[in-house]
Amino acid sequence: MRTYLDCIPCFFNQALRAGRIATGDENKLKKLLDEIGTMLSDIPLESTPPETGMLIYEKVREITGVLDPYKELKRENTEKALALYDSLKHKVEKSNDRLLTAIRIAIAGNVIDFGVNRKFDIENELDKMLNKDFAIFDYDKFKHYLDKTNEILYIGDNAGESVFDRILIEETKKPAIYVVRAMPVINDVTYEDAVQAGIDKVASILSSGTSAPGTVLETCNAEFKEIYKKSEFVISKGQGNYEGLSDESHPIFFLLKAKCRVIADDIGVNEGDIVLKGMNV
Amino acid sequence: MRTYLDCIPCFFNQALRAGRIATGDENKLKKLLDEIGTMLSDIPLESTPPETGMLIYEKVREITGVLDPYKELKRENTEKALALYDSLKHKVEKSNDRLLTAIRIAIAGNVIDFGVNRKFDIENELDKMLNKDFAIFDYDKFKHYLDKTNEILYIGDNAGESVFDRILIEETKKPAIYVVRAMPVINDVTYEDAVQAGIDKVASILSSGTSAPGTVLETCNAEFKEIYKKSEFVISKGQGNYEGLSDESHPIFFLLKAKCRVIADDIGVNEGDIVLKGMNV
Repeated sequence: MRTYLDCIPCFFNQALRAGRIATGDENKLKKLLDEIGTMLSDIPLESTPPETGMLIYEKVREITGVLDPYKELKRENTEKALALYDSLKHKVEKSNDRLLTAIRIAIAGNVIDFGVNRKFDIENELDKMLNKDFAIFDYDKFKHYLDKTNEILYIGDNAGESVFDRILIEETKKPAIYVVRAMPVINDVTYEDAVQAGIDKVASILSSGTSAPGTVLETCNAEFKEIYKKSEFVISKGQGNYEGLSDESHPIFFLLKAKCRVIADDIGVNEGDIVLKGMNV
Repeated sequence: MRTYLDCIPCFFNQALRAGRIATGDENKLKKLLDEIGTMLSDIPLESTPPETGMLIYEKVREITGVLDPYKELKRENTEKALALYDSLKHKVEKSNDRLLTAIRIAIAGNVIDFGVNRKFDIENELDKMLNKDFAIFDYDKFKHYLDKTNEILYIGDNAGESVFDRILIEETKKPAIYVVRAMPVINDVTYEDAVQAGIDKVASILSSGTSAPGTVLETCNAEFKEIYKKSEFVISKGQGNYEGLSDESHPIFFLLKAKCRVIADDIGVNEGDIVLKGMNV
């Protein structure tokens, strides 16, 4: 997905949000925004938003000196999500369509996103997501691709959300590779976060090599790109991965909640809608 | 009022909103945002937001070549407000406290503000404002100052809103000077807009000399500053004038709805609250 003009004010909001978690020093925060202002003319509208996100979070690290502002929050969110694990499994077990319930749970987990908003209520979100209609619902194709494949390439999004992804991976009953960011960016899932979520029990964990808050292939390592190219069944979770991958020609299933108007417009749905979209399938 | 860090993303939103009304050319809009980005490091947090607003709207004019993007919208809003004039007068007449009802009506008019938001519903807003409790309510002081004064200095805010101001001015039954911006900036009221609203029938109209979207004294002309200094009763409408005047030592009555969190925090009220605040009184 390209950068829309409306993404630009949002970049400043994101920088401010991440910066504030790293420091309370107003002068440093002003410097951060000033430097992003200076960078702006070098950011073409043709680039994807996570490419700019990468530059923003580099600046946050550089100016505040904090490598991982969201470290503690990520740990807490994963813990909270783990505390829900048993009840979520129970919801899956008692449902009429276990796979679909697991998909809904995985989407509910997508609400844990500090890039878009700091405040969320995961239990309230779960109730909503278990009953909400999908705006795009390529479920039959999803099941068809799942039946055919020997392995799932599951591209994770946020820490904490991974616990919910784990439930979906378990429900697919297929070997899986779970893809994480190479280093901390916003609250996106890294290797360490995925292990805390117990992903290592249900999948092998692979770093995409990127430090962008989304899968921007040019910033990914050769190993990931090779596996991605060969994969018969790719699940891409969340907005950041959609932004990075939406113009690819590979078959991908996007699983997300459209949390901002710009992305909702790009997909062709309304803000707040949930989506199971098979692209190139 | 100083500039808060949260004002900075908002500056970009404002520029984008004004720019879009002036042009549909995405490259010009990107250039506009880029140039505001470059300006950012020259904007100290000590400056007031309307000082930056002035620079932003200068850029909008320079890059789009449109002197007054809101011209047509301002004209329409004033027309819509004029169409309500008789029914508003009727509301005042049948009320228990005519002056207070006129104050409430003047505050309802403050919803016509494209700097903060493009969408509003004036009739719905009127119903709410006629019944809402004030978060700060220095009404007794307001009446005391009004009784004593021979003349009101009424600093207007937005075009269209002026029709509602006119009702309050009429209700004060005192000679008034109505202050307008020197040139178009956002949808702020200019001489031409005030005349369209019929302000010339109830007050003399004076340009403050500023092109900022708020009363920033350093940018005002000598005539206004002289009259302001001598005035015994100043009414300042809206957020922009509050931002410019909130650190002054002159007695001023601020009449506004707190439409953004930053200003609400600065005043010490909640977002959405209405305020009749006497400062230095």
